[in-house]
Amino acid sequence: MKNRNVYKYLGKVLIGFSLAFVFPMIVAIIHHERIFPFLIPSLISLIVGFLLNQFINKTNDLYAKEGFIIVALSWIVISVLSSVPYMLGEGMSFYNAFFESVSGLTTTGTSVIKDVESLQKGILFWRSFTHFLGGMGVLTFVMAIIPLSKKDKSMHLLKAEMPGPNVAKLVPSLRKTLFFLYGIYIFLTVSEVILLLIGKMPFFDSLLISFGTAGTGGFAVLNSSIASYSNFAKWVIAIFMFLFGVNFNIYFLLIIRDFKSVFKSEELRTYFIIFIGSVIFVVINSYHQFATINEAILNGFFHISSFMTSTGYSIGNVNVYGTPIRVLVLLLMLISACAGSTCGGFKMSRLIICAKKIKRDLVKLVHPNMVKSIFFEGKKVEEDTIESTTSFLLLYSLFIIFIMFIVSFDPLKLTISQTINAVFTTFANVGLCFELTSFAEFSGLSKIVLSIGMLLGRLELYPIIVLFTNINK
Amino acid sequence: MKNRNVYKYLGKVLIGFSLAFVFPMIVAIIHHERIFPFLIPSLISLIVGFLLNQFINKTNDLYAKEGFIIVALSWIVISVLSSVPYMLGEGMSFYNAFFESVSGLTTTGTSVIKDVESLQKGILFWRSFTHFLGGMGVLTFVMAIIPLSKKDKSMHLLKAEMPGPNVAKLVPSLRKTLFFLYGIYIFLTVSEVILLLIGKMPFFDSLLISFGTAGTGGFAVLNSSIASYSNFAKWVIAIFMFLFGVNFNIYFLLIIRDFKSVFKSEELRTYFIIFIGSVIFVVINSYHQFATINEAILNGFFHISSFMTSTGYSIGNVNVYGTPIRVLVLLLMLISACAGSTCGGFKMSRLIICAKKIKRDLVKLVHPNMVKSIFFEGKKVEEDTIESTTSFLLLYSLFIIFIMFIVSFDPLKLTISQTINAVFTTFANVGLCFELTSFAEFSGLSKIVLSIGMLLGRLELYPIIVLFTNINK
Repeated sequence: MKNRNVYKYLGKVLIGFSLAFVFPMIVAIIHHERIFPFLIPSLISLIVGFLLNQFINKTNDLYAKEGFIIVALSWIVISVLSSVPYMLGEGMSFYNAFFESVSGLTTTGTSVIKDVESLQKGILFWRSFTHFLGGMGVLTFVMAIIPLSKKDKSMHLLKAEMPGPNVAKLVPSLRKTLFFLYGIYIFLTVSEVILLLIGKMPFFDSLLISFGTAGTGGFAVLNSSIASYSNFAKWVIAIFMFLFGVNFNIYFLLIIRDFKSVFKSEELRTYFIIFIGSVIFVVINSYHQFATINEAILNGFFHISSFMTSTGYSIGNVNVYGTPIRVLVLLLMLISACAGSTCGGFKMSRLIICAKKIKRDLVKLVHPNMVKSIFFEGKKVEEDTIESTTSFLLLYSLFIIFIMFIVSFDPLKLTISQTINAVFTTFANVGLCFELTSFAEFSGLSKIVLSIGMLLGRLELYPIIVLFTNINK
Repeated sequence: MKNRNVYKYLGKVLIGFSLAFVFPMIVAIIHHERIFPFLIPSLISLIVGFLLNQFINKTNDLYAKEGFIIVALSWIVISVLSSVPYMLGEGMSFYNAFFESVSGLTTTGTSVIKDVESLQKGILFWRSFTHFLGGMGVLTFVMAIIPLSKKDKSMHLLKAEMPGPNVAKLVPSLRKTLFFLYGIYIFLTVSEVILLLIGKMPFFDSLLISFGTAGTGGFAVLNSSIASYSNFAKWVIAIFMFLFGVNFNIYFLLIIRDFKSVFKSEELRTYFIIFIGSVIFVVINSYHQFATINEAILNGFFHISSFMTSTGYSIGNVNVYGTPIRVLVLLLMLISACAGSTCGGFKMSRLIICAKKIKRDLVKLVHPNMVKSIFFEGKKVEEDTIESTTSFLLLYSLFIIFIMFIVSFDPLKLTISQTINAVFTTFANVGLCFELTSFAEFSGLSKIVLSIGMLLGRLELYPIIVLFTNINK
């Protein structure tokens, strides 16, 4: 049996994931709600996982290809499992539940539920909790709680699941790296919860909104997203969205007090410059729409933070912004923030590598015989990495066009710009967009295709491609 | 003086181009119209060219960089010169005249003139004649009539002006290559004129429309473009648009009876498959909009041919097509037809090379140590060519986004999809698009930026970039 490793690992992942349902069960119990919508998928996950793990033995070394397949399969299976609470708890159709589940796990945050305030607390918690799980990665979550293999052979899994062109361990041990990453993740999340509590936001809201910020997801507790909270809370969320768009390596460098490397980070600098530049651009082009300049600044900062980190929270109607801002936002959605963060999109580091490559090829035009290496963050970038980065961008665009193409058939008869907004916001895992407010009316086909788009975007294409094609020669 | 070569060549180009105005002068004389709108730019071109050529001596070898600069400067200067007839003859403003001139020379065919039927015959001829000149290239035209340098050192100019990733001579001599290319070009144009005359179209219309087809331009003689001609004429034009989208090397191969190479051509095959596939797609998705299936087929064939070859003729309101067709057309506009044709856009051969590169990088993902060359048209593609092809596509997209960004500020308050359509249709030198019918109302800034976009698209970015930046290290 060739795919023995795949099933063995999938089994372990399912066992680990069954524990995720415990948290919403606790919430349900506290609020006197039924727990079976969570108990059933948890048991299925546990039993199937146990069977797979028990009856398949001997795992050899893990190859890159298997890594991709395990990640892709795990995400698809887990997306189905995590849609069960929506079906059992709220009676949603499979299309809607699957879309909502994928939107949660991929930290997209676009919803088919029009009235989230009517949801049971347990379900509401589950929605936001999937953001928290999906942000760092489902397998990362599992790897952090149960050891998958003895000798740190799971690096392929981490590479396949973590965003960015070059995933590296922070410390020699994979489990210690995961420990650090989760430490930073939880520390930032808890900090946000505390600050929101200080701003007098209810605990339940603070926790769920922090989950949504941490995973750069965007599912909120109220129908008006963040609009009805205090300005203090809005600023806290805006700043934390920005912070979760920073490469987690930077926080690690701060912990080990390597401030020099932090200041020298090209990715961080570029992120900062593009962010600030965009905020200024938006404020200049929209201040006349707001009562005060402070309001314009808060709105500009909040929404750029939300779009750029692919979170998707909003504090007002974004349709007040004109076409220039909309064009900018479409671009920011695609670029997104730093690699090694919980954001979607193409990532800042890939943008920098591509920009350097373009510059090099322009110089080559005039000096054909010049050979020059590309440096990023002080290190030479391998030619293979450069090549795969451009291929990634081209493939990324290709998939976006393909999905746009299918969605354009939706009986809703979307316009070109609605189609673009719908596809960009899902593919880049943003969740907020212009012109559209809910995906509830989309056809079943569109929902499935957009769900696949969210998974493609979150897993950065390759795992899904390797799963569905037979790349061998 | 460092740029001696540049000015010397520019002088020669201007002398050659002064002859171009003779043709509209003849038309003006025949129709008893004033000839000074053409005589004046012709004299300016001749005198300035003569001065530059006379007082600058010693031309050394031509370097790649100089080639780019000569091409870029020539196109800009010639665009200004060829806008003079519009200003002097029809009293158009500079913005409008320059836009119309660039649209003609770059074979875009989008217009700021709302009532073309009211134009003088000489001006009408000039508009279409600039398509004919620009299609093969302004410098190619000049090189074909006057020898620029003795020892075929002008290859850099041809490479900088001719579309496609790898321009090669058909025969060892450059002038003979130009002779063959112009021979094919004129033969096809004359064939179309004859066929249109057989279809009882007036001679003047037949000639001008053939100019527009040959250069894949799109300026027409009537306000309704091609709509009011006979079905026979529509089919003739549709087929010739398709034929002018074929790589001219293919016609050369047909002349030398190398049918085997023609059948084996990957680019031709891909062009054919995408073309036929698109026509079928459009017919299936639009036949219910037409009275008969024949009409739907004619419309589908004509418009796909027009969009894909970046010509821009139309035989009816394209806005009857729904969103799926519009998404397809946006894509086809960007891809366009074969390299080595008169079309705009990204070109089929670059698409194929990129697709093969993506495929290779996907295989590498699973088999990291595999080294594999890419073959195109039976020949190994140099790694440098692959790299520059991906860079080209990325830069191409970057410029499109940048221009969209500026155009989005237009006081017309365009929507996202209007902005996309306006920028795509100009940048890819198409001229026809959805939602917009005329560019007359655009602001001066938008017109200038879109004109630069047309030049960037026609010259495939690099000459303009080299001219305006100082790439030296």
